[in-house]
Amino acid sequence: MENMNLNKHISGQFSAELDDIRNRVLTMGGLVERQLEESLNALSALDAELAQKVIAGDHQVNGMEVAIDEECARIIAKRQPAASDLRLIISITKTITDLERIGDACVRIAKTALDKRLKNQKPLLVSIENMGRHATRMLHATLDALARMDAEVALELHKEDSKLDREYEGIIRQLMTYMMEDPRAIPEVLDVLWAARAVERVGDRCQNICEYIIYYVKGKDVRHTSYEEMEKDLNL
Amino acid sequence: MENMNLNKHISGQFSAELDDIRNRVLTMGGLVERQLEESLNALSALDAELAQKVIAGDHQVNGMEVAIDEECARIIAKRQPAASDLRLIISITKTITDLERIGDACVRIAKTALDKRLKNQKPLLVSIENMGRHATRMLHATLDALARMDAEVALELHKEDSKLDREYEGIIRQLMTYMMEDPRAIPEVLDVLWAARAVERVGDRCQNICEYIIYYVKGKDVRHTSYEEMEKDLNL
Repeated sequence: MENMNLNKHISGQFSAELDDIRNRVLTMGGLVERQLEESLNALSALDAELAQKVIAGDHQVNGMEVAIDEECARIIAKRQPAASDLRLIISITKTITDLERIGDACVRIAKTALDKRLKNQKPLLVSIENMGRHATRMLHATLDALARMDAEVALELHKEDSKLDREYEGIIRQLMTYMMEDPRAIPEVLDVLWAARAVERVGDRCQNICEYIIYYVKGKDVRHTSYEEMEKDLNL
Repeated sequence: MENMNLNKHISGQFSAELDDIRNRVLTMGGLVERQLEESLNALSALDAELAQKVIAGDHQVNGMEVAIDEECARIIAKRQPAASDLRLIISITKTITDLERIGDACVRIAKTALDKRLKNQKPLLVSIENMGRHATRMLHATLDALARMDAEVALELHKEDSKLDREYEGIIRQLMTYMMEDPRAIPEVLDVLWAARAVERVGDRCQNICEYIIYYVKGKDVRHTSYEEMEKDLNL
């Protein structure tokens, strides 16, 4: 199988197509990363203009998902990839779904930034901002691991998500206390809660992408397995 | 291309493999449907035993996702499908991701059923139950459309989700009022809110599956497009 692949690559054209599709995924990832940063900036500054820019920018993320998916189907039909080439295409089609959903999370965060009532709740936004910065770093590192197809880093990042989960739980407790103390503020605090939830989901999406990286590099589907099993699969 | 496909099918074996994979997706769908029904039953009766059964059953859903995905990759590598056969495989790999996520929503609902504080909040659970029944009918109809690969029904179901969204918004308003009137109940009401959110997400997942059905039947990716465009694509 791997030999057949090599022969195909010698033609050069197929290799170029695979490089091109990888680059397009990374471009999409870069755009989503910018959307995440800007949505968080919009939220902490309650900047309505920037929030609207993020919301308007989502259609570009969506368009990239559809275009890359189409290109993947075209490559499968035309090039009949096998082994690692096929795994690359499969990993890519799955990755872009998660990137698109991170884009949706950014829209959710940006919409929260439009809630004018929040200008009286600035302290609540600080915790979201901190968690948001953590999620942004995680996304950035995940896209780096994707660019270098580094399964070991992907595993480390996968584990990292539990820290984000704990931060999220802390924020939920904080918001709950706040609502109990000031029940009139419940509607806007719930808005903050949805934003926190969206940030937490970014971490889950990064975990998914890390699983696809490991699948591509090691040829093992590690979804729904324990870290012990994953490490065995990765020979760590 | 379609002619090449026909020739392959004459061999019979490939056709049988495609039928088999379709059946496996429908079996997975049936399991997820049962998980949804049981998680909702567990929630409305606060039946901890049934809730634990749903939580324990999730690993079976996860296992099916991994096994079907593996089979899809095997078929692509071995049979090199093109045209509608390839679209079938692509639709299936995407559908099972959404089915697995519906399975996660069931776990979320079942976990809420384990919250003992909710025995004082039974009226809140009635609204969730009604919305849950609606989501269950939607999932059932989506799986029917998938079994018959009926793009027109898929489009109707896609539109149906907005009704579920409105029900969800009504429930959120109800829960908000409730929290404002009895702030001490906020922690358990938030638990109900997460369950409501999980039910609402089931509808979104069904919408995704409907989009894959349309993609398979019509060869058009209708994600992120308006109903006007979809109807044009479907020649309705």
